[in-house]
Amino acid sequence: MKPIQVGLLGIGTVGSGTYNVLLRNEEEIRRRAGRSIRISMVADLDVARAKSVVGSDVEVVADARQVIANPEIDIVVELIGGYGIAKALVMEAIAAGKHVVTANKALLAVHGTEIFAAAQAKGVVVAFEAAVAGGIPIIKALREGLSANRIQWLAGIINGTTNFILSEMRDKGLDFDVVLKEAQRLGYAEADPTFDIEGIDAGHKVTLMSAIAFGIPVQFDRAHVEGITKLAAADITYAEQLGYRIKLLGITKRRDTGIELRVHPTLVPAKRLLANVEGAMNAVVVHGDAVGTTLYYGKGAGSEPTASAVVADLVDITRLHTADPDHRVPHLAFQPGQLAATPVLPIEDVVTSFYLRLQVADQAGVLAKITGILADRNISIDALLQRESAEGESKTDVIILTHDTREGDMNQAITAMQALPTVLAPIVRIRKEELS
Amino acid sequence: MKPIQVGLLGIGTVGSGTYNVLLRNEEEIRRRAGRSIRISMVADLDVARAKSVVGSDVEVVADARQVIANPEIDIVVELIGGYGIAKALVMEAIAAGKHVVTANKALLAVHGTEIFAAAQAKGVVVAFEAAVAGGIPIIKALREGLSANRIQWLAGIINGTTNFILSEMRDKGLDFDVVLKEAQRLGYAEADPTFDIEGIDAGHKVTLMSAIAFGIPVQFDRAHVEGITKLAAADITYAEQLGYRIKLLGITKRRDTGIELRVHPTLVPAKRLLANVEGAMNAVVVHGDAVGTTLYYGKGAGSEPTASAVVADLVDITRLHTADPDHRVPHLAFQPGQLAATPVLPIEDVVTSFYLRLQVADQAGVLAKITGILADRNISIDALLQRESAEGESKTDVIILTHDTREGDMNQAITAMQALPTVLAPIVRIRKEELS
Repeated sequence: MKPIQVGLLGIGTVGSGTYNVLLRNEEEIRRRAGRSIRISMVADLDVARAKSVVGSDVEVVADARQVIANPEIDIVVELIGGYGIAKALVMEAIAAGKHVVTANKALLAVHGTEIFAAAQAKGVVVAFEAAVAGGIPIIKALREGLSANRIQWLAGIINGTTNFILSEMRDKGLDFDVVLKEAQRLGYAEADPTFDIEGIDAGHKVTLMSAIAFGIPVQFDRAHVEGITKLAAADITYAEQLGYRIKLLGITKRRDTGIELRVHPTLVPAKRLLANVEGAMNAVVVHGDAVGTTLYYGKGAGSEPTASAVVADLVDITRLHTADPDHRVPHLAFQPGQLAATPVLPIEDVVTSFYLRLQVADQAGVLAKITGILADRNISIDALLQRESAEGESKTDVIILTHDTREGDMNQAITAMQALPTVLAPIVRIRKEELS
Repeated sequence: MKPIQVGLLGIGTVGSGTYNVLLRNEEEIRRRAGRSIRISMVADLDVARAKSVVGSDVEVVADARQVIANPEIDIVVELIGGYGIAKALVMEAIAAGKHVVTANKALLAVHGTEIFAAAQAKGVVVAFEAAVAGGIPIIKALREGLSANRIQWLAGIINGTTNFILSEMRDKGLDFDVVLKEAQRLGYAEADPTFDIEGIDAGHKVTLMSAIAFGIPVQFDRAHVEGITKLAAADITYAEQLGYRIKLLGITKRRDTGIELRVHPTLVPAKRLLANVEGAMNAVVVHGDAVGTTLYYGKGAGSEPTASAVVADLVDITRLHTADPDHRVPHLAFQPGQLAATPVLPIEDVVTSFYLRLQVADQAGVLAKITGILADRNISIDALLQRESAEGESKTDVIILTHDTREGDMNQAITAMQALPTVLAPIVRIRKEELS
């Protein structure tokens, strides 16, 4: 049978990996897919560099639209990234009747609804395993492997840069700024690390997972996103003393009133496998009503791990190339027309437990006032740790772990506590999840 | 659209779970699958008990052949277990043109080649996600999620009973026999636990994973299978001191000369996530050349976790019900006709590192003789621990960790060491895997 012809838009890190994996494992992949899968055309602005990556049998052009216009191309792989030209090209490829494989989480988290609708109308596939957690087949697990379940929640370490930084901060007791510089030097963080350290990248990924877990549209604009830039080494240490580690998690949860969708630093019990995912590794925990808790772990980025996901999508499409479009796995796990209008809850309505750190004056009655404010709002205390103040010091740290609390109530309590003259610095508040 | 009609053969623990999950999540599953999936007929020898489990709209019969003969039934779910009548019924269901979903690892590991060939010829699916690691979608991950990779090895905790026993032995320092009784009392081990504790169940499961990872036929008769019955509490303790935990692993590895396929107690570095999988939980680590190391974790048994996998297979079949049989995912991940004849290696040709415990006379020159025997066979020592002999004791334990060694060479060395008059008891030998 004629090979499946793939056109690559952009041949940077992931594109090179995809080319190399397809070439190296050609025989193995053909035995699985039933047909050879070949990259026969590549578009990249840097034609010379692109030519140095691929063999002479691959046509290299500068203009991506030549790839899309080529009637020989069955599948277009978009690896340009971003919302701009990438969006236009994906829409044009769909319009040209091409299947699309993309690693572009930003594009899908923001414009997914429009893109999937266009693909549905045209009867083509838009596959995006590579967009979340690199080579871990988590999209497939959610969309197919756990399809029996009413998924209750999922929580993931889905940004390697921030997990590397947090691991280093804990291991070496260093502050964020110092570790970020080190991460940049080692290539774990980009020159402009904003998307990673502000949690935006994790927000894109958890938005996609939330859609396919709960059967709701992708809606990144509703996600609550906090990064790790304000995290102090002291809080990592206190958390450790209380039996917790701090991870940047993407979390989405089903509640009676809607869906929680959020990214923020989170205290996780140290004994959970997720708390022990170190360095640049990724892991996602999914809790379904039938299966219970499952976990998926692996490399979340890098040339060949991400290529592994791109090529898996190519194999899926090749295997089902001729299947009736109505009998393919739906893009968002649920059938189009079957997406629910369940609202994404505002962050004030999210319920979690909390870690609070208060710098207070070391004098009588302080704790009584603080605990009184919490009690007034029915916020119940799970654990309290007061550091002994050092010789001659007139202030100390109080650490409080609460039970589950509505975030809006906690905000009010924090405002009230912050107003106390005996509270000497901005109160630190980090959410906590037991993930059991 | 008309619901997909499912006939259940056997409604015990997993069957009841399957019925309950399909009923409870009917709406969610229909939104995913595009059609309702209903159990409309159940065969069980205990008709009265079966009727007490299902609703009055489900026809219950004693004779499984009535289900197979019913032209309304689209998919037959075989949950009887064993090689006997289950095999006959699966073959008859295939012959009748039914798709088959089964949790029967024993049947597929032993008779899979015949069953998959029959299914292929008839153009029906035989799906078996529930046969390995309960609700963890590991079959799907291997067959689809990692299809870009040349898989190098996989290693799994795939029997909950033995992992529960090993966790308890380590936590409480108890011997195997004591913990087994406790596990039986708690329902974690069966009255006749042979299949579990002798590693046979794990052997069936790793045989299936080996086939789909490497594209070879299922061949349980070539697997090397050892259980945990001979494991002493002392070895768990010594392993711990050296930074390892002992787990019963199913392991399969690609080597230049063939495939390793084996189940045995294994020392695993304590820092690996796999070493921290406790109690009755399951986990599988898969190493692919592109993706690197990935891990899949969850409940490996139980009514609803296993039902989660059965129903996922039902959804897969429903989604692709009308697809051309040549364009479905192949049963064994690789296209029929594309299975490799790569041999499964005899255990003597397997290469691992080893943990050895020798009880020796506490006298000069003993260590020199032992290390000499190892050196003669080019077996290199990674670590050596000699317990200080207690006051008045004339014997002591020597623990040796070796580097990678061909098992046949190790056998010879053990025979030679065992013959030394200063070696006072049978040498304990446990294989060790770094899993990096």
